[in-house]
Amino acid sequence: MEWEELARELSQQTDTKIVLLVMDGVGGLPADGKSELEAARKPNLDGLAKAGICGVSDPVMMGITPGSGPAHLALFGYDPLKFHLGRGILEALGSGVEVGRNDLVARGNFATVMGGLVVDRRAGRIPTEENARICAYLNEHLPQRQGVEVRVFPGKEHRFVARFTAEGLADALSDADPQKEGRAPVPTTPLAPEAAKASGLVNLFMDDVAAVLKDEPKANAALLRGFSKFPSIPTMQALFKLRPAAIANYPMYKGLAKLLGMDVLAVGGETADLFEALEKNWDEHDFFYIHYKRTDSTGEDGNMSAKVAAIEALDPFLPRITALKPNVLVVTSDHSTPSALKGHSWHPNPFLLVAGTAGVDDVAAFTERACAKGYLGRFRSISAMPLMLAHALKLQKYGA
Amino acid sequence: MEWEELARELSQQTDTKIVLLVMDGVGGLPADGKSELEAARKPNLDGLAKAGICGVSDPVMMGITPGSGPAHLALFGYDPLKFHLGRGILEALGSGVEVGRNDLVARGNFATVMGGLVVDRRAGRIPTEENARICAYLNEHLPQRQGVEVRVFPGKEHRFVARFTAEGLADALSDADPQKEGRAPVPTTPLAPEAAKASGLVNLFMDDVAAVLKDEPKANAALLRGFSKFPSIPTMQALFKLRPAAIANYPMYKGLAKLLGMDVLAVGGETADLFEALEKNWDEHDFFYIHYKRTDSTGEDGNMSAKVAAIEALDPFLPRITALKPNVLVVTSDHSTPSALKGHSWHPNPFLLVAGTAGVDDVAAFTERACAKGYLGRFRSISAMPLMLAHALKLQKYGA
Repeated sequence: MEWEELARELSQQTDTKIVLLVMDGVGGLPADGKSELEAARKPNLDGLAKAGICGVSDPVMMGITPGSGPAHLALFGYDPLKFHLGRGILEALGSGVEVGRNDLVARGNFATVMGGLVVDRRAGRIPTEENARICAYLNEHLPQRQGVEVRVFPGKEHRFVARFTAEGLADALSDADPQKEGRAPVPTTPLAPEAAKASGLVNLFMDDVAAVLKDEPKANAALLRGFSKFPSIPTMQALFKLRPAAIANYPMYKGLAKLLGMDVLAVGGETADLFEALEKNWDEHDFFYIHYKRTDSTGEDGNMSAKVAAIEALDPFLPRITALKPNVLVVTSDHSTPSALKGHSWHPNPFLLVAGTAGVDDVAAFTERACAKGYLGRFRSISAMPLMLAHALKLQKYGA
Repeated sequence: MEWEELARELSQQTDTKIVLLVMDGVGGLPADGKSELEAARKPNLDGLAKAGICGVSDPVMMGITPGSGPAHLALFGYDPLKFHLGRGILEALGSGVEVGRNDLVARGNFATVMGGLVVDRRAGRIPTEENARICAYLNEHLPQRQGVEVRVFPGKEHRFVARFTAEGLADALSDADPQKEGRAPVPTTPLAPEAAKASGLVNLFMDDVAAVLKDEPKANAALLRGFSKFPSIPTMQALFKLRPAAIANYPMYKGLAKLLGMDVLAVGGETADLFEALEKNWDEHDFFYIHYKRTDSTGEDGNMSAKVAAIEALDPFLPRITALKPNVLVVTSDHSTPSALKGHSWHPNPFLLVAGTAGVDDVAAFTERACAKGYLGRFRSISAMPLMLAHALKLQKYGA
C-alpha cells in the first residue's frame, strides 16, 4: 500500500486547521559565514522555531534540485516522482486559462527575430498592453485549420499561453525555443511517436505567427516551451478530505493549487494582502497554503542582501497567523534558492512545525543549520502532509 | 531487490544472540515540560543509552499512527504496508486457537440485547468461568449446517473467538458490532463479492446464538469484529535464519509471534516472569522478543503517573538481561502511546542499541528528545531488524 492509498483510507474531516506558509526558496547557503536566514533579523520566525519542533526536508531526494512544480507537489503530499506537471499547464491554469481534455498548452514568449536569428528572446519586454493587443490580433488573424482550434492568452510583458485544441494531441514535445539569443528559432520535435500530430501542429502555428506578425517591430515571432496536457491527479479533497485554500500571487502557484482542488482566494499584490486573505477566509477552510515569492526571486537574482530583506519583510506578519490559533502551523520552503547559486538547489529546506501535539525541541532559530539539529531530523518533503494531518488529528489509526 | 529478498539471501545462522525488549507504547509527549520517559527515574535504561547508540524510529512512516499489529510487524522486519493482519487472527492465535487454511476467525463479545437494542456490549463483563460454560453450551447446541463447522473459544470475561470452517470463506467483511450501546445489533456485510458466502454464514451464526442463548440473563447475543483468515507471511526462520522466541503475556502479541514462527515461551503474569523465562530459555534461541505491556495500557488510560511508574517498575530488571551478555540488545517501543493523547500516536519511538560493534554516542538518557539527537538518527522501524542482524554479524556482504 502506498501513501496515496493510505491517505484515502485514513484521512478524516475535522474542524482543526492547518496553515502551511511556504517561503519560496528561503533555504540558502552561507556567504561570509552566514546564510540568508542566519543573517536576517526575524524574531517571530525564531520564536516559532523555539515554540515547536524543527527539521530539514529534501524536496525529491537528497541531491536532486527540483523545479517549483515537483517541490510544491511534494509539500502537498504528492509523490513528485509519480506526478509530472508540465510548466505549461501550471502557467495556463494560473493565468485563468481553461484547459480541457483535448487541449495542449504551452508557455510562450514573444521574441524578436532578425535575419533568421533570435535577437531578443523577450521582444524587448513589450508592455503588457501591447501583448494584449497582439494576442487579440493573432486570435483574429491566425489561419483556421480543419479540426483544430488555436488560441493565445496574454500574460505579463512578453509572456503568453498558447492553447491547441484537437483530438489526439500528446505533450511529449521538445521545447520550440533556442534558449539563447543569436541562434535560429528551433521547431519542436516529437519525443514519442504519438506526439507527431501535435508537433506538426505546433510548428505550423510558429510559422503562422511569424507570417501574421511580420510587420511588428519587436514581437514578430513566438517561442514555446513546457508543452503539457491536463494531468490526471487526485484532488486534496479526495485524498485528504481537506477543504483547502491557496493564498498566492503568482500564476504558477495558483495554477498548481487549482489543479489539486484548492480554492484559489482573491488576493492583492502586497505582502500584507496574503494575511488579510487568510483572516477573511479563516472560517471557510481547514487547510491554508500561503505562498511568499520574494525569497525565491531575490535568490534567483543572486542578491543576498535583498533576500535577507525579503525574510525580514515577512517576519512581522507572522503574529497575524498565530493570532488565528491554527492547530498546526508549518513554515518551510519548497526548495532552496541560495543567492550564491542564483537558482534552485538541492539543499534541504528548513522546516518548523508548531502544534499542541508536537512538544518542543532545542532549536531556537529558523535557519538551515539549527533546523538540522531538530527533533524531526531529516526527511523527504512528501512526509510534510502526513505530519501536518497527524498533528491536526486528521488521520485515523492504521491497522489493529 | 527488496529487503525481504535481501534478507533471505544474506542472512546466516550464527551463535550470537539478540534481545529485543519492546516497552509497548513507551514513547510519549511532554506534559508540564516532561514526557513520561523524561519524568521517570530509570538508571538502568539511561545507562544502556549511555553504553550504546540511539535514534528514533517511525513505525510505518512519518505521521501514521499504527495499530499494534503493523507496529510490531515493522520491528520484526516485515513491511507493515505489505503484510496486513486482521485483529481476529492475532486474537485467535494468541488464545491458542488453531487456525487452518479454510478457517475464518473473528473476535467476539458476548453482549446483552433487550427490546431489540444492545444495552451492554460486554454482557456485564461476565466471569470467565461463565464464559467457558456458555461457549461449551453453544458448541453443543448450535444447529449443524451442511459443510460448515463453527466453534467458539472462551477468552477473558465477555470475550471469545469464533471460528468458521468451510470451503470458500473470505474475510472482506464489515464488523457485526454496532460499536455503541442503545443501538440494534448489526449484521455483517460483504466488502467484496467473494465474501458473500462468509457473510451469510456469519449472520446465520449470530441468529443461532441469539436463539440458543435466549434465556441467558446477560450473555444473550454475540458481537463479532476483525474477521480474518490465515495470512500468507514468511517465517522469521525462513527470512532471517533465526531461532526466535517470544516472551509475552497478552494473546495478541503471542499470536503475532506464533504467526511469524517464534516459539512462544510459557511465562507467568508478573514482570519478573518475563526475565525468568529469558534466563531459562537462553540456550535454546538466538532471538528473544520480550513484550512489556504496562507502558501502553497506562498510556491508553491517560494516566501519566501510572505510565511513569510502569517505566520505573521495569527498570530494575534490565541488569538481568545484560547479565546474560547478549550480543545485541535493543530497547524501544512498537509505537508511542502518549498519556496526553490516551491512545496510540504517530510520534516516533525512542530506540537504543547496545552491541560490541555499535560504539557509543553522546546520548545519556533513554528519552524521546535525547534519542532524537543520537547517532542512529531518524529511521523507519523496518530498519530495526537489519540493524540488529548486522550487529549480531548475521548478515553477509551484499555483492562483491
